[in-house]
Amino acid sequence: MIERLAIIGVGLIGGSLARALRGAGAVGEIIGCGRSAQNLELACDLGVIDDCSRDPAEAVAGADMVFLAVPLGAVRGVFERIQGQLRADAVMTDGGSVKGSVVADAAAVFGEVPARLVPGHPIAGTEHSGVAASFPELYHNRRVILTPLPQTDAAALARVRAMWETAGAVVTEMDVAHHDHVLAATSHLPHMLAFGLVDLLARRQDNDEIFRYAAGGFRDFTRIASSNPVMWRDICLANADALSDMLARFGEEMTHLAETIRRRDADHLLDIFFRAKTARDSYVDGVSVPKPDSSTPQ
Amino acid sequence: MIERLAIIGVGLIGGSLARALRGAGAVGEIIGCGRSAQNLELACDLGVIDDCSRDPAEAVAGADMVFLAVPLGAVRGVFERIQGQLRADAVMTDGGSVKGSVVADAAAVFGEVPARLVPGHPIAGTEHSGVAASFPELYHNRRVILTPLPQTDAAALARVRAMWETAGAVVTEMDVAHHDHVLAATSHLPHMLAFGLVDLLARRQDNDEIFRYAAGGFRDFTRIASSNPVMWRDICLANADALSDMLARFGEEMTHLAETIRRRDADHLLDIFFRAKTARDSYVDGVSVPKPDSSTPQ
Repeated sequence: MIERLAIIGVGLIGGSLARALRGAGAVGEIIGCGRSAQNLELACDLGVIDDCSRDPAEAVAGADMVFLAVPLGAVRGVFERIQGQLRADAVMTDGGSVKGSVVADAAAVFGEVPARLVPGHPIAGTEHSGVAASFPELYHNRRVILTPLPQTDAAALARVRAMWETAGAVVTEMDVAHHDHVLAATSHLPHMLAFGLVDLLARRQDNDEIFRYAAGGFRDFTRIASSNPVMWRDICLANADALSDMLARFGEEMTHLAETIRRRDADHLLDIFFRAKTARDSYVDGVSVPKPDSSTPQ
Repeated sequence: MIERLAIIGVGLIGGSLARALRGAGAVGEIIGCGRSAQNLELACDLGVIDDCSRDPAEAVAGADMVFLAVPLGAVRGVFERIQGQLRADAVMTDGGSVKGSVVADAAAVFGEVPARLVPGHPIAGTEHSGVAASFPELYHNRRVILTPLPQTDAAALARVRAMWETAGAVVTEMDVAHHDHVLAATSHLPHMLAFGLVDLLARRQDNDEIFRYAAGGFRDFTRIASSNPVMWRDICLANADALSDMLARFGEEMTHLAETIRRRDADHLLDIFFRAKTARDSYVDGVSVPKPDSSTPQ
């Protein structure tokens, strides 16, 4: 049970956690904090939060649990503002899509990463933003990755885990660097491809006609290109090395695929498409993706 | 009204047209043709077709409308088989995703493109294949592009247009080469990116973990990677020049984006993501995508 939960950033992620914990009767009071007075007012009107402040220092006063759900570029500023304002037993966690930058920001502001800060990442979301887009089921059966450090307090870790499980999530733990590498591949790279494709087409003079004849698959494929640009700028900056490596590698793959098509190498094309379909169908069916055999190009 | 409709290839595309026309009472008898006896039997059992043959020559006998819905690589073989077997007044059309190759195949087999052949392309589909995946509403409010040639018979064109409108589609006409260029951008390129991404991840030794942590957006983004590999191999071969050009260009874009991320160019990243989000939101809302201004990189 959380007595007083401070949510810094009451958008899709923060708002959905508040709704889920409230629905489960797992929280006493919820204080919301954000830069937009209008969004905070809406959050109050919707009953997502009980009270609010635009000052993080004020919002965290007396809270036994603090959840940061702000764009990664705003994390350091929040840490600076709440330094020295937390209850001694307060547990802090976050929802950032990159963990290395959160840990580095914490070390820079607090001198070392506090034992009661449990870096975390709920693998959930939609392309919509703001508290109006939040809903209590967002985390049902979705994974939350926690990336504790050697100095992380075991009781704090247990409290954060319990909080997410109450919201319906499946919690796993992972090393900070490994998390950022895995997410570069599964989330950050696909977002770059979707943004990149839509931008490439939007920059054409015939863009209106191009989009008019976009097929049904295009709508699904590009859904993530409607995501929050500021959030994604921050993710790129926070995970720049892992992401730029993946992206450069993908660029080479596409150059290679273009060559394969140009020379009309039918067998090679069929290999790629079959391998991809098999992996994607396995993923959707919830069965293990086949291990690559030794003859598969890495 | 169609007296006798021959559908060569009773899968998602052919089966859905049969169901739509049957539902509208716009067809007398429907003869299905395909290589899989099992699929044809299922099509009969489902009432999608009235009778079937595994021989295209037999299937088209007496038909006043013939619809080819086979992978592009099979089109030429069908043309060869049905040459001289068609009723004098039979109208023929197809559902191939590339029109240049269909026209070239027709010219090669028939000496010139027949006046009663109306090349067409319904911009509709799902990632599923086979008659079991077909449904009568597939074409509702979806675009069908017809690409008549100078020699195309006006009455044949009007019959094909009426057939698709009966199935609920919005029909437009376009030049063959223009169609193939537009579709390379809006459909063929996105499929390559989805196949390419899933294949890249599937080839990693840690692929099982990678897919386990794939986010919700990944499922939508990669849906089209579950498409029929043979169909897509054929599309690549049939539209090789336009598609490989687009893909090479996209590869360069991604290499450039990787560089932008590596040098942490925050403003440039925000520009790209905002432009993409604006275009994608406009597309979904059904409003015109903003024209690129003269300062936008082409």
